[in-house]
Amino acid sequence: MDETTLNLDKPTFADDKTVGIVGLGLIGGSLAKALKVNTANRVLGYDINPNVVKQALAEDVLDATLALSETNGLQSGAPSAQLHECDMILIALYPEATIDFVRANWDKFKKGTVIIDCAGVKAEICAELSAQAAERDLYFVGGHPMTGIERTGYEHSFAHLFSGGTMILCRDEHTNIIALKAAEMLFTGIGFLKITITSAEEHDRVIAFTSQLPHVVAGAFIRSETVKQQLGFSAGSYQDLTRVAFLNEPMWTELFMANRQNLIAEIEGLRTRLEEYVQILEEGDEQKMLALLAEGKQAKQHYG
Amino acid sequence: MDETTLNLDKPTFADDKTVGIVGLGLIGGSLAKALKVNTANRVLGYDINPNVVKQALAEDVLDATLALSETNGLQSGAPSAQLHECDMILIALYPEATIDFVRANWDKFKKGTVIIDCAGVKAEICAELSAQAAERDLYFVGGHPMTGIERTGYEHSFAHLFSGGTMILCRDEHTNIIALKAAEMLFTGIGFLKITITSAEEHDRVIAFTSQLPHVVAGAFIRSETVKQQLGFSAGSYQDLTRVAFLNEPMWTELFMANRQNLIAEIEGLRTRLEEYVQILEEGDEQKMLALLAEGKQAKQHYG
Repeated sequence: MDETTLNLDKPTFADDKTVGIVGLGLIGGSLAKALKVNTANRVLGYDINPNVVKQALAEDVLDATLALSETNGLQSGAPSAQLHECDMILIALYPEATIDFVRANWDKFKKGTVIIDCAGVKAEICAELSAQAAERDLYFVGGHPMTGIERTGYEHSFAHLFSGGTMILCRDEHTNIIALKAAEMLFTGIGFLKITITSAEEHDRVIAFTSQLPHVVAGAFIRSETVKQQLGFSAGSYQDLTRVAFLNEPMWTELFMANRQNLIAEIEGLRTRLEEYVQILEEGDEQKMLALLAEGKQAKQHYG
Repeated sequence: MDETTLNLDKPTFADDKTVGIVGLGLIGGSLAKALKVNTANRVLGYDINPNVVKQALAEDVLDATLALSETNGLQSGAPSAQLHECDMILIALYPEATIDFVRANWDKFKKGTVIIDCAGVKAEICAELSAQAAERDLYFVGGHPMTGIERTGYEHSFAHLFSGGTMILCRDEHTNIIALKAAEMLFTGIGFLKITITSAEEHDRVIAFTSQLPHVVAGAFIRSETVKQQLGFSAGSYQDLTRVAFLNEPMWTELFMANRQNLIAEIEGLRTRLEEYVQILEEGDEQKMLALLAEGKQAKQHYG
């Protein structure tokens, strides 16, 4: 792969490019808004719901619709543009839809286009797309913005969703380093404070713990019968632990299923560690409980 | 029991009373500061650490030390007062120390004194103190301010710790209703938004779920080996779930042990519910996962 085929002449993402966004939900909508607020790039957008596209155009969040089909995105009179006009494409769809979208459009991307997805699991997507993109002189980077909130859809999107957050980017042997750098610059430019570069496999393994397990625990926790009495008996720790029980269940089902083995291992690990507390309580062993709680406290102090 | 022996002529806590606070840690220190900010009552305080008492006097958080022993609280020249001067006594100690303090001082309280404790478990304390107080024409009310933060000690106390929070008060067949009302008025007056009146047994059962279980889960969660990789891979859900892993481990050990049966039942319930997620992941059954996640989401919407 010849790095000079990348339509970027230095390792920054300049302000005069065309960025296409596929999927204008919470993440895609916020990406479009953040690009508009922070850069002078031309922003194109597509959503399966034409009303969302109309709204984004009316709000000047998009410069034009991204016409992915003859029937969608081509509302009468609305400015529209084609995939091959994009220098960078940001895909903000669920995992399977991400793979389907790229597969269906291999021939429509311009050579040198940087394609970045935003799905919450990475191994399957990167395995499917990274090598195949490179073969076609396209530059695929798997991404995961760690900035979700417990709401979904364009109507909840906002330009500062990413401010201070972490963006994870995945690299493998097919990754073009200039494309990766361009992605890094773009995401830093729209508000991310930290960019984590890792492998897709490491991403999925760690995210099973840091992100998926809290969503499992929140749901498992709140499904206690005792929750019916919680009103008047709860404070911050209950509120914090249960916050993400309110989630987008189709999306999280897909994310969990795509990362089953890692997630099962983390849930089983947690169940084993919970059993330690039960045993110590049954024994009534205060010294052991002190030691266990101190261990958790130290981990929180050390690992944040 | 004759309610007229209570030194309060109406069901409010007037501004001209003397309130003694035993234990000037996060809760006791904040109680003293909140009383000073919000009321004109005379505030007396005791702490096992004489430097804390000195500091509170210097900061005008206390009007005088509460002299509980000949050696403590009687620093040269510092204003000091006796337990029998108190109309109300707020005890902000650990559970066992709470019982020990009251037992050691039965004869020193003035008849009609309202005694309220602030420990996080209630059944044992109320069983030990409520009936015995009533026999002595003292009015005991078990209390639990649901306003902890993950810091301890007078140096972290502040007048607005209770603002907007919930105060739980326990009643039983020995509870004097005017004393209970006085407690309610006092706590509302220093910032609590909600007063929950319940039994000690109900308190302990529900609190095992709403407060103790989140502290167990936070510690069990963060003790995963994967935590060593969390930096750069975590966001809000991780932070929220692990926040209370940083805790006062001697206090929580005592609270857990005093409520063992309820806490064991809640941990085991959570372990069972977590196992459901594992089974569904192993089966790869997306419909079942959707249903489970929807159940958690609905519980969060319904029960808050």
